[in-house]
Amino acid sequence: MANQVEAVKQYLEPEILERMNKYWQAANYLTIGQIYLKENPLLREELRPDHIKPRLLGHWGTSPGLNFIYVHANRLIREHDANAIYLAGPGHGGPALLANVYLEGTYSEIYPQITEDAQGMRKLFRQFSSPGGVPSHVSVPTPGSIHEGGELGYVLSHAFGAVFDNPDLLAIAVVGDGEAETGPLEGAWKGIKFLNPARDGAVLPILHLNGYKISGPTVLGREDIEDVKDLLTAHGYEVFIVEGDDPNAVHQIMAETLDTCYTKIRAYQQDARQNGFSNRPKWPAIIMRTPKGWTGPKVVDDKQIEGTFRAHQVPVSDVQKNPEHLKILENWLRSYHPEELFDANGRLVPELAELAPKGERRMGANPHANGGKMLVELALPEIKDYALTVQQPATTFAESTRQLGKYMRDIFTRNAEQKNFRLFCPDETNSNRLGDVFEVENRCSVGKIVSDDDHISPDGRVMEVLSEHLCQGWLEGYLLTGRHGLFATYEAFAMVSDSMTVQHTKWLQEGIKLPWRSPISSLNILLTSTCWRNDHNGFSHQGPGLIDTVLSKKGSIARIYLPPDANSLLAIARHCFQSKSHVNLIVIDKQPQLQYMSLDEAIEHCERGMSIWQWASNDEQLEPDVVLACAGDIPTQETIAATWWLRHHIPELKVRVVNVIDLMALYPPFFHPHGIDETAFVENFTEDKPVVFAFHGYQRAIHEVIHGRTNVSRFHVRGFMEEGTTTTPFDMVVKNGMSRYHLCIEALKRAPRVKNLAPALIAECEDILNKHHDYVRENLQDMPEVRDWKWSD
Amino acid sequence: MANQVEAVKQYLEPEILERMNKYWQAANYLTIGQIYLKENPLLREELRPDHIKPRLLGHWGTSPGLNFIYVHANRLIREHDANAIYLAGPGHGGPALLANVYLEGTYSEIYPQITEDAQGMRKLFRQFSSPGGVPSHVSVPTPGSIHEGGELGYVLSHAFGAVFDNPDLLAIAVVGDGEAETGPLEGAWKGIKFLNPARDGAVLPILHLNGYKISGPTVLGREDIEDVKDLLTAHGYEVFIVEGDDPNAVHQIMAETLDTCYTKIRAYQQDARQNGFSNRPKWPAIIMRTPKGWTGPKVVDDKQIEGTFRAHQVPVSDVQKNPEHLKILENWLRSYHPEELFDANGRLVPELAELAPKGERRMGANPHANGGKMLVELALPEIKDYALTVQQPATTFAESTRQLGKYMRDIFTRNAEQKNFRLFCPDETNSNRLGDVFEVENRCSVGKIVSDDDHISPDGRVMEVLSEHLCQGWLEGYLLTGRHGLFATYEAFAMVSDSMTVQHTKWLQEGIKLPWRSPISSLNILLTSTCWRNDHNGFSHQGPGLIDTVLSKKGSIARIYLPPDANSLLAIARHCFQSKSHVNLIVIDKQPQLQYMSLDEAIEHCERGMSIWQWASNDEQLEPDVVLACAGDIPTQETIAATWWLRHHIPELKVRVVNVIDLMALYPPFFHPHGIDETAFVENFTEDKPVVFAFHGYQRAIHEVIHGRTNVSRFHVRGFMEEGTTTTPFDMVVKNGMSRYHLCIEALKRAPRVKNLAPALIAECEDILNKHHDYVRENLQDMPEVRDWKWSD
Repeated sequence: MANQVEAVKQYLEPEILERMNKYWQAANYLTIGQIYLKENPLLREELRPDHIKPRLLGHWGTSPGLNFIYVHANRLIREHDANAIYLAGPGHGGPALLANVYLEGTYSEIYPQITEDAQGMRKLFRQFSSPGGVPSHVSVPTPGSIHEGGELGYVLSHAFGAVFDNPDLLAIAVVGDGEAETGPLEGAWKGIKFLNPARDGAVLPILHLNGYKISGPTVLGREDIEDVKDLLTAHGYEVFIVEGDDPNAVHQIMAETLDTCYTKIRAYQQDARQNGFSNRPKWPAIIMRTPKGWTGPKVVDDKQIEGTFRAHQVPVSDVQKNPEHLKILENWLRSYHPEELFDANGRLVPELAELAPKGERRMGANPHANGGKMLVELALPEIKDYALTVQQPATTFAESTRQLGKYMRDIFTRNAEQKNFRLFCPDETNSNRLGDVFEVENRCSVGKIVSDDDHISPDGRVMEVLSEHLCQGWLEGYLLTGRHGLFATYEAFAMVSDSMTVQHTKWLQEGIKLPWRSPISSLNILLTSTCWRNDHNGFSHQGPGLIDTVLSKKGSIARIYLPPDANSLLAIARHCFQSKSHVNLIVIDKQPQLQYMSLDEAIEHCERGMSIWQWASNDEQLEPDVVLACAGDIPTQETIAATWWLRHHIPELKVRVVNVIDLMALYPPFFHPHGIDETAFVENFTEDKPVVFAFHGYQRAIHEVIHGRTNVSRFHVRGFMEEGTTTTPFDMVVKNGMSRYHLCIEALKRAPRVKNLAPALIAECEDILNKHHDYVRENLQDMPEVRDWKWSD
Repeated sequence: MANQVEAVKQYLEPEILERMNKYWQAANYLTIGQIYLKENPLLREELRPDHIKPRLLGHWGTSPGLNFIYVHANRLIREHDANAIYLAGPGHGGPALLANVYLEGTYSEIYPQITEDAQGMRKLFRQFSSPGGVPSHVSVPTPGSIHEGGELGYVLSHAFGAVFDNPDLLAIAVVGDGEAETGPLEGAWKGIKFLNPARDGAVLPILHLNGYKISGPTVLGREDIEDVKDLLTAHGYEVFIVEGDDPNAVHQIMAETLDTCYTKIRAYQQDARQNGFSNRPKWPAIIMRTPKGWTGPKVVDDKQIEGTFRAHQVPVSDVQKNPEHLKILENWLRSYHPEELFDANGRLVPELAELAPKGERRMGANPHANGGKMLVELALPEIKDYALTVQQPATTFAESTRQLGKYMRDIFTRNAEQKNFRLFCPDETNSNRLGDVFEVENRCSVGKIVSDDDHISPDGRVMEVLSEHLCQGWLEGYLLTGRHGLFATYEAFAMVSDSMTVQHTKWLQEGIKLPWRSPISSLNILLTSTCWRNDHNGFSHQGPGLIDTVLSKKGSIARIYLPPDANSLLAIARHCFQSKSHVNLIVIDKQPQLQYMSLDEAIEHCERGMSIWQWASNDEQLEPDVVLACAGDIPTQETIAATWWLRHHIPELKVRVVNVIDLMALYPPFFHPHGIDETAFVENFTEDKPVVFAFHGYQRAIHEVIHGRTNVSRFHVRGFMEEGTTTTPFDMVVKNGMSRYHLCIEALKRAPRVKNLAPALIAECEDILNKHHDYVRENLQDMPEVRDWKWSD
């Protein structure tokens, strides 16, 4: 690495270089303090065992590098008045980012008890990775953060999402070389293929080649740096290398490199903004190769620490009991000369403090990283303009999601000026019947476009890429910076990114506890092409699992809606687009389906969460013999058809139909805010009558939800039970025991009042099911009587 | 593309070229037949509407390319006696692979009803994407397949897993350019950084640049081909380009290129096998750029079809009703001259049939793709050699997973000769206390190794890479080809690849229905570093969600074990390593924890699935006042501590402790084969006594599981309720209401017989909980009385 030292010219004046280096040392000092110290924060006394925390937690290894980048980003911001945010990919860099937002003053503004003095520093140290304190990762309570450490792989997709439609924003995205091994990260380099310099901001990726994970080398850390450069070049970047272990030399290279990158970015943007988009720039990216645990202890117990995997977490342990280790720690801390960095009160000395940007230019205070502050509400059209006329329930067919497509088309139009809405979808916008958006909006690509292409433009805001990770990561970044959107995807493959859904839910859950974080728009996920209508695509496409994942999340955040038709979908969609800080799962298929509710009925139904459908029931609002309940479009269709069959074959049986549109309404109210009170629950389901419940998802999940309700053992749930293959739509419900005839059989079995009549009717249902088996095998399609079944009197 | 035509030399003799082209046409013909025809398979009559299937399903676009590669792979195999399998990344290539395994004769051997004649061909066509037939994707019923279409992204990780420790095997892995957009695929190119030419087989990736997804261009399809080449080169490959639209020219290039690649692969392997491993070869990879829907209709309704996204699925639709479309289809089918390809009976003519390899060299019949056929049972050491002595329950601490590490160390040793066991783990083998394996085995890397490295070697079989997708994908490929292994990972981040777990479960579920598929070893996933002991790492690391995902899967496949200590972990691990066709989730933390059972007790306990722990109970085997049940290590610890507290504070209260180790044993037996019968259930839990159940996972999941059992409303479950942060271990159970004191309160509330004594004791518990809050905030650690609590008399 010595070569660079000689090669580098003196880009920075010695005076500024020295001050920047000290600022970096201050950040490093505070990082170590957070890991080790519970007392004596400024080292005014000799270090004693009782100054040390009882449990040493946190990660030193990546921190000096993160601090180094932060200090240089500060310089860049001040030099160019840049509007920048910082995304720390290395999950374990919590103390570094905390150190920096404390040094720049943001932290004390947001958390006034953590003052800029010795007392505040002591609290800063004690709270870190402590009960009632703050996590060891960059996380929601970290000012300036839109990206949580922990589950790795999403720093680039979040960064790109943040800068879409944010023309002035620069997202400095530090990619750890551990994270760089993940698939989602590797797949996210291609963000530039969707980034329009005329319209969007820029991401500056900094791949930090730290060399090691917890106990082994990283894959890229062991490559020749030129090979790593070739890889990023091949991903489409112009790559700059910053490498070395001599801080002064690396400071010079880094400062010059950052200026170069920034100048290039702005030049590309200006050119595109003045002359229109022409082609994809070779956006700059930086590879920064510095030792793991840089400036930390070189050797402990005769083992090399700095520059090895041993620097990953706590580089010198057992400090309370091992006097030699205590001495190493003290020497290490004193090597930064805290007495020169902080004044008598423990405040950063003014000549260093002035290196930080001012006000909202500080990365910890940039409002883009507190997206709710930037949020402009969506101008939503009236949903009545997209509503279908439903004269009589269950007699007409329509593709419900097509109405949502029209609604979103006009959302695009209405918000064209404020440029704050995007639709994300693997490659299925048309297939999912949302294609009306293409009347006004295009698919986004900054690649080559040919004459046969269908609605593709560098200006498009329909983001199609065959990666659920990218779709969801981009949308999350877009939302976290105060915008709005929808992720529409195949139900089964939403599981690909369900861990991201989990992590975003956790983010929101922590966020709502922090008054300084302004609420952001909800994460809206439309699950379409559902299990029941992936009859043609086969078993691998049949999986309603995301419902279970979201069910386990907190009631403060998690919502699941199962609109059965177009008008209820519109009402739900409007609500979701207006809502804040939720994860909204909307489940509905794209195929032509029966329509049940007028818009007014649908709105009222959505507000209740569930309702009795009187038109389908014959219990004259008295006690029915059996309740047929349903949640989801296909379960509703089968339930209605079962009700019709029962009413026509055994009119003396009194049935009631309850449709559930808001799954969380079934939860007891103490468990979920949408849970209807027990009186309303009993009004719907009676107190003790059998309930045959047809459910869109895995059947037993309903038992999880209704636990705590009145007489739950009378609920007999039919739903997806992991029976699937390539077959017909009706055969799917037969295979899973949820067909109308199965529901009839279940209802007949459960109604004692018609005990004598039931056996014959049950036999009749079984006959029909047998006939179905023969028919589909012979004709390769469903029997006519189920194919286009509708309600008739 | 015309340039290539001139440039290519005549590599193949015209005669063989012509025959190969005809074979390809036969495959294309059969592909189209599957999509369209229900009658008239050989086009012996003029095509009529009633010959057409009622619903046109399937994907033409990718199929001619897949067929082309198959035909050339056949030639390669015959030319070199190569041992090759074929993995079709493009999920929608089902009809292509079916066509080829039918042409080579494998299909009729496995499915005798699909004969090699007109009648069989008719059945082949009719079954495709039809009820009771076969899925439209490459899937489990497809002979020669170890990789299902559908969820995209895993073709390379499955291919690398297949060739690890399979020195002679060549996995030809076709990567679709749609799939290439996914993160998991992009991250999987790095498989070669773990591939040892001396020991492993080889993967030949063929990136098929087809240009389009359903309705838009692919990202790589729009790049200059030299840029795509640079990308794969930067991933470490030597890249060969096969490009064109003139079949004859492309045949020539492809044949020569495949020979070149194969020769290089064998040369690298021979060199390493003769002279020892020296450095990572630049393994060959092919980019094949051919038109989407190659040889299909050029134009339909004035729209370009071939070479555009319109060729993706059914390129000419509405064939039954539109006579012009019917004619286009007929001309298209006849363009392959079926009368020249198939004899009078409908069998492939001999001069073409002989182009297929023979016997097990046929890719549809290669036993590696039917891994159970190759499976050699693991030689397992006696678990007693790793058992801990437990004199008295709940009085000693040990890191349970450390014993598993010792066990696996000796599994490595015992099976060193047969080379069929690997351990997969992101980077945490040591951190998860499995590090004893490093006494005999190394981490695998074929990259640079430096002196400070810890147990790294190109010969290692501990696969550490910071990618759950790679760990799991490699293991799946390894298992599907008949070997054994374990994926050990942080519980929370197992969610990253949970959609893979779902898809593998579906694969196994289909597989057990097919007698010709020999059973393979189970997918064993060890979830350690669990939510309860990620107190230090914070909320993002706290998530037991994979339990819910696996709970929804079929009882024929899904297993969840929650061993509470070392000896039960050993007994479970032994069972899992011996089991077949299951997905086994084993959940246990890595920290020092209380030990409860001797090995014999543990084995008996595992066999039962759950047991009453008499030593902890004081109900004298009569009816208790309350049952304290638990599943999982920390819930068990809290339950035992609660029992102790209750017994010491209120001896008149009769408590029973039930520990559940096999979660599926709680299911009713009709729902899961492990479900214990109702008598046994009542013997454990009584018929009507209150049960306070402490559960490792999301609390309400238990209600889902026990639905159908006796008096389920008496079960009061405490578990993870998504409350987390960076804190202490005991604070984690407090936050989630599962601490010993919470359990005591719950038990006291539920036991009417001690109603008078309960309020004071409840108040005492609440006092302790308050004291805890103050203590941890002051001391940054747990109260001494809970920190190392153990049972004492």
